[in-house]
Amino acid sequence: MGEPRIGIVTISDRASAGVYADESGPAIEAALRDYLATPCAFETRVVPDEPQHIERALRELAASGCCLVCTTGGTGPAPRDVTPEVIRSVCSKELPGFGEQMRAASLRAGVPTAILSRQTAAILDRTLVVTLPGKPASIRVCLDAVFPAIPYCIDLIGGPRLEGNPAVVAVFRPKAK
Amino acid sequence: MGEPRIGIVTISDRASAGVYADESGPAIEAALRDYLATPCAFETRVVPDEPQHIERALRELAASGCCLVCTTGGTGPAPRDVTPEVIRSVCSKELPGFGEQMRAASLRAGVPTAILSRQTAAILDRTLVVTLPGKPASIRVCLDAVFPAIPYCIDLIGGPRLEGNPAVVAVFRPKAK
Amino acid sequence: MGEPRIGIVTISDRASAGVYADESGPAIEAALRDYLATPCAFETRVVPDEPQHIERALRELAASGCCLVCTTGGTGPAPRDVTPEVIRSVCSKELPGFGEQMRAASLRAGVPTAILSRQTAAILDRTLVVTLPGKPASIRVCLDAVFPAIPYCIDLIGGPRLEGNPAVVAVFRPKAK
Repeated sequence: MGEPRIGIVTISDRASAGVYADESGPAIEAALRDYLATPCAFETRVVPDEPQHIERALRELAASGCCLVCTTGGTGPAPRDVTPEVIRSVCSKELPGFGEQMRAASLRAGVPTAILSRQTAAILDRTLVVTLPGKPASIRVCLDAVFPAIPYCIDLIGGPRLEGNPAVVAVFRPKAK
Repeated sequence: MGEPRIGIVTISDRASAGVYADESGPAIEAALRDYLATPCAFETRVVPDEPQHIERALRELAASGCCLVCTTGGTGPAPRDVTPEVIRSVCSKELPGFGEQMRAASLRAGVPTAILSRQTAAILDRTLVVTLPGKPASIRVCLDAVFPAIPYCIDLIGGPRLEGNPAVVAVFRPKAK
Repeated sequence: MGEPRIGIVTISDRASAGVYADESGPAIEAALRDYLATPCAFETRVVPDEPQHIERALRELAASGCCLVCTTGGTGPAPRDVTPEVIRSVCSKELPGFGEQMRAASLRAGVPTAILSRQTAAILDRTLVVTLPGKPASIRVCLDAVFPAIPYCIDLIGGPRLEGNPAVVAVFRPKAK
């Protein structure tokens, strides 16, 4: 089986064209390495804000066995922001609680424009897909708000058991009924 | 007319197969009897996590005149969890505030994995359908969070007038415009 | 170019039939004039709760160059409440954070039935459409909760720059990445 696999997809016209360096993808990987006690293998992609490119990246990462794919970018209201539409077309079960909590955490952090974010999460076969903001400074705020529930979600969809680093994050698994 | 009718649908492969006894359905009935001052007739069903069975139960209970149908189970991210999809396919108007408040109440009760719940509510003709969690311990937390708005919702969709038990719950009806 | 244009659509069978005077539309205009330091031109419509009428009003106001259209009415669970369905059919990107925050603000204001509201916001070409409640007393509660993010949203969809009146509302624009 090997180590659990995690995918990271940076969705940005400019980063994919080399106009600037991708800072968001590395910020997500750094945060996840910090949260997780279980060693994981990371696979990263940088794609433009084009539905076909985003869809291909999500499908390939899910097919390669990633239990979690985090995207960054493309969740706002601007014309090129299409990440939520692609996720809805590719995935089967949207989990609105992720978007609610990520927006609420950003609002608490003093960002009233957090209500413009269309962040969400959804299931693609045995992969949990979570959309994170495009700004590196906002990524940790959002991940902190939802990470405690991610390992149990991966349990429920048949993925590998991920353990959190209790010094950093309190991963939660409810007791069986 | 007779007493107002309320339906309860336990959605669980194992409870419907007799692997264990249904505790969630009786927990919902007990909570509603506690909240309601108006005597009501309860009709209960136990079905597996199969779209056709869930759909038939919802349609039959709505057709039999239930003003409220509460479901329990099938709202998580696991492959067999299909309750929200069936509700969306059968009902006409989703009320996202129910899911928001039920998840928020579960989070306040110390359950970070509440964000994995896809609980919701929607309208089926003159029936309000509300999805509750599958765990008996979580049902009252969620119902407490939304019950004060349920009688007025039933007023708005043309159902019978339900009165709350003011010692238990503060049912709210806004003053007319 | 002229002044930025803002549309207001009162959606009400009774107001459009003259059964009572429209108070909600003027309440929205008064609130927006209070919030905005930028002089704007307002265009108002009163239509019945009929999908074709609502759709036509939204499309005409968007085509006339309105950067913002606020609707009032039709967001509840009653049979004639169809505003969210029309918005979803006409617009391209729903912004769930608006509904979440407007419901949360109404709940904080002591209205438990706020969870029955299906308020939302969405993008129609270069127009931000925001649904507000039908009751005049609730309009300011909801607008206060979301207005700080509206000018930046209009920036992102290519509209005119709106400045807030800092004595009344703290409009927020995040710093560039």
